[in-house]
Amino acid sequence: MEEQLASAAVNSWKIVIGRIDHAIAALDDEQFQRQIAPGKNRLFYLIGHLTAIHDRMFPLLGLGERLHPELDEVYVTNPDRALPDSISASDLKRIWSEVNNRLTTALEALTAREWLQKHGAVSDEDFAKDPTRNRIAVLMSRTNHASFHAGQAVLAK
Amino acid sequence: MEEQLASAAVNSWKIVIGRIDHAIAALDDEQFQRQIAPGKNRLFYLIGHLTAIHDRMFPLLGLGERLHPELDEVYVTNPDRALPDSISASDLKRIWSEVNNRLTTALEALTAREWLQKHGAVSDEDFAKDPTRNRIAVLMSRTNHASFHAGQAVLAK
Repeated sequence: MEEQLASAAVNSWKIVIGRIDHAIAALDDEQFQRQIAPGKNRLFYLIGHLTAIHDRMFPLLGLGERLHPELDEVYVTNPDRALPDSISASDLKRIWSEVNNRLTTALEALTAREWLQKHGAVSDEDFAKDPTRNRIAVLMSRTNHASFHAGQAVLAK
Repeated sequence: MEEQLASAAVNSWKIVIGRIDHAIAALDDEQFQRQIAPGKNRLFYLIGHLTAIHDRMFPLLGLGERLHPELDEVYVTNPDRALPDSISASDLKRIWSEVNNRLTTALEALTAREWLQKHGAVSDEDFAKDPTRNRIAVLMSRTNHASFHAGQAVLAK
C-alpha cells in the first residue's frame, strides 16, 4: 500500500514534467525569448529556473551531486535579464531533459521508507520535532512549483 | 508508514490552498476584476473556476454531494466574460472558503486504504486495468491544477 502511495507522488511529478517537455519541444529560439506577460519573465528564464531548482533536488534528496550548479547565478540568484543567458536555447533544452531524466530515474528507485526519511536541508533535531520534513514533502513542493510556473508559461506569446 | 504518505499529499493540498487563501484575503472588489494579463482571465474567473473544480471533488472522491453546482455554467463551461458574474466578490470569497474548508476536513478523514480506492469517474473494469486511477491521483492532480492557476494569479495587477 505504501509503495502505491509513493508511486502516485512520482507519477504526479512525471505528469507535470511531461507536460512541460511537450510544451518546450516545439519552441524555437525566438519563441524561447517570449515573455509570459509584458515586462515579466521570459520562457527561457522560467525553464532555466526550473532546471536549476530540479538540479538542486539531487543533493537535497540525497541522490548524489547536482549536474549543473553553474545555472544558479543566472537563473536563481538573479532575476530575469539581470545577466545575459549563459547557454543557448538548444543547450537549455538538452540540460532540462538531462536533469529531469536522471532525477526521475533516481526518484523511481526510492522506496516508501526512503521517501519518509528527512530531506537534506533539515537537521536531525528539527526532523525529530517535525517528521513531515521528509523527501516526499520536497517532491510534492517541487511538483507544485513546476505547475505554478507551467501556468505562467502557457501565457507567453 | 502509509498514513504518513497520505498525510503528505493532504498537507501539500493544504499548503497550496492556504497560499491562495492568503492572496485573495487582501483583494477588494476592484482588484478581483483584474486580468492576469491583457485579454486573459480575470482573478474573479480564476477563483470561481477553482472553487467549482474543487466543489466537484466531493462526488468525484465519494465524499458526498457538491455544494455549488450553479458555479459551473459561468466558471467552467464558459470562458471568462462569456456570461456576467453570477455572484458578488464577497460571495465568491465566502464560497471559496466554504468549499475548501469542508473538502479539506473530508480529505483529512480518509485512510491510506481509502486513498487508493478508485475515484468516481472510472469504472470498476477500467480501475482493474489501471489501479493508479485512485483518489490520491485526483488529489495530486487538483493540487497541481490549483498551483498552475496560482502561478497565473500572481501576475495580475
